This record gives sequence, structure tokens and C-alpha cells, in this order.
Amino acid sequence: MRQFVVLAHELSASADVSLDDLPGAGRLDLLCRCVTSALLLSHDIREAVDVHLVIDGYVIRFDGAELRRLNPDERSTAALIRDALAIRDEAIGAMAATASPGVSIRQGGFEAALERLDSTPIVQLHAEGRPIVELVPPTDPVFVLSDHREFTESERAVLAEFADEHVSLGPHALHADQAITVAHNYLDTDGFAAY
Amino acid sequence: MRQFVVLAHELSASADVSLDDLPGAGRLDLLCRCVTSALLLSHDIREAVDVHLVIDGYVIRFDGAELRRLNPDERSTAALIRDALAIRDEAIGAMAATASPGVSIRQGGFEAALERLDSTPIVQLHAEGRPIVELVPPTDPVFVLSDHREFTESERAVLAEFADEHVSLGPHALHADQAITVAHNYLDTDGFAAY
Repeated sequence: MRQFVVLAHELSASADVSLDDLPGAGRLDLLCRCVTSALLLSHDIREAVDVHLVIDGYVIRFDGAELRRLNPDERSTAALIRDALAIRDEAIGAMAATASPGVSIRQGGFEAALERLDSTPIVQLHAEGRPIVELVPPTDPVFVLSDHREFTESERAVLAEFADEHVSLGPHALHADQAITVAHNYLDTDGFAAY
Repeated sequence: MRQFVVLAHELSASADVSLDDLPGAGRLDLLCRCVTSALLLSHDIREAVDVHLVIDGYVIRFDGAELRRLNPDERSTAALIRDALAIRDEAIGAMAATASPGVSIRQGGFEAALERLDSTPIVQLHAEGRPIVELVPPTDPVFVLSDHREFTESERAVLAEFADEHVSLGPHALHADQAITVAHNYLDTDGFAAY
């Protein structure tokens, strides 16, 4: 399976999210696009994909195998994230709380999230990594991306410990959701070989 | 330069667009994502890109070289499209009307749009085309995509006349915006060679 970990830097877990202003809610628009880019195909869902959004000491997980309601637009996805944040007090200790089918929230930050994901390799996506074409397409990768902000110093320290690869997707810095789409395409085509 | 022509099938030019329900407004959410996928990089704009949205007898053009206000979220892009549709009566004959910097609207359908774009090749993107890796990356391509619906019979007839290539981006049918992202990546990396 493929997993994507996206680090949110500006969204507060206690934010009063307005669905009419997703950019103003800590760039929630960007997080929504990451979720749908990772999980949706045209008229289909990628069941063997999980997305983990790391938000202010919590991790919201979208499980492609369990999801029942995921539409391509930002607003409806934002409502799923808002509803997961709303029940964060039900996530106690290591127990996740389920907000809707396939959408759950648990306590913990970036490092705890990576510790829990025992798949390998853990692949950091960043404009300054080595070209992805040098990477033999892995079977169960965990891709780690930042939102519109750079990885922080403490996140880079965690990545130095956990990341097996540091990979770039081309000469331009892409939006996180665009990077997810390209990474999927790389794997879908077995390293651009099996079109 | 690169150009993208996206065919909208459910959006009426006279639709009373609600920014709170973009999917309900003829899948305007999808059109917005096509515009931003084509024109935006992380913290940057692709100036040498034009997007042409073919909507109910009109073509809205986003000109990357002239755009001043394009944010990554769907809602703000939807407002630009709504505002362009609102001045469609000012587009008379072959004259385009400018709604905001870099955003204009003119009369005419799909065939007229392709006739006006004298760049080549015209490349139809579709899940059943031949693999894009067989295509030498062109300098000034015009990519043609449909929204969530299949090309209609009359659109296929136009494509039979105008399209130079019929290309697929992998084994899965992608959303139109995802296809744009992958096509850009193909060109950015000179056919996945120059990562």
C-alpha cells in the first residue's frame, strides 16, 4: 500500500473552521487537495492508500479501504477534517476516535506518526531531493510532504532519523497535492516504464 | 508555451453560481482545479501557460503572463470564472471581454477555440490514448481534456479533425486536474529524462 504523511503548519486543532474561507483556516484548502489527490481517481477511489494529516499535535487518518464519502471538491473534504478535529477529545492515549467511515483522529505528532508506520521506505518529497527516477519504485512507500511551508528544524531532525530516501519530482517546486499526483503516477507506471 | 483546453459539459453560462456549492454548479470545482493545476507552482505562477475553458458556447481564457490574482483554492478561482461568465454579453463577435487581469471571455465553442490556437501539436489526453512516453516532448503543445464526462460525439468529430496526438498518462483514468499535473511533469522533465 501507499501512504502519504502531510505536515500542516498553520492549522490549529481548535480552529473555528469556516468552510467559506479554507485558505484562512490554516490553508485547509491545501490539505483537502492532498487528501483527494492521494485517494481519488476519475470515478474511483484508491483503496490501498492511507493519508495522515499531522495537525497541531493530532493525526487525522483517511483510510482508502474504509472511506465511504469522499468527494473531489475541497469544501466537502474540509467538512470531514473539521468533523474529525471536533471529536479530538475522544482520542485518548493511543486510541483513535472515528469521525466518519474511514476518517479517524488520534493524539500525537510527526515523530509518533512515523514510528507507528512500519512500512518502508519512508520517502521525503522535497524539491531538493535526488531525482525520483533513481528510486526503484517501492511496494509500500510512505511519502512525507510539507504543506506550503518548509519543514521545520525539528521536523528535519525527525526526517534525518526516519527517512530512507529524499526525493525530488522535477525541476520545479510543486504544490503538495501536485507532488502526490506525480508520485502516484511514478508508481502507477512502474517508474514511468509501464505506460 | 503550453496550453490546456478543458471541455465543461454541465456548467451553463447563465448558471446562478453559488460559491458554497461548486460541485452543484456544473462541477465548477473541477474546472477550478484544472486552472490552478495548469497555472500554479509552489509560490509561483507558470507564465507561459494559457488555459481555455469551453463552457456552453463561450471560452474563458486564463493567460499566465497577465494573471495577477490567482490563488490555489477552488473558491477564489470559481469567483474569477463566475465574474467572467457575468460579462459574457460584452463579448461581441470575435472580441473577447476582459473580466480581470489575465481572465477574458469570448463567444464560440470547441471547434472555434481549436481553430484559433495555431500552436501544434494538439494533444488529446484520454485514458485510452497511446503512452505519453512515446511522444517526443513538444515545445508548444495544446492539450485537450474533458471534465468528468466523456468527450461527446461531436467533440470526438472535432478531435478527429484537429488532434495530432491521442495520449494516455498511465494505467488509471485520472481526474482532469491530475492529468494536467502529470502532463506538466512530463514536459518539465523533458519526457521524464531530465529529473
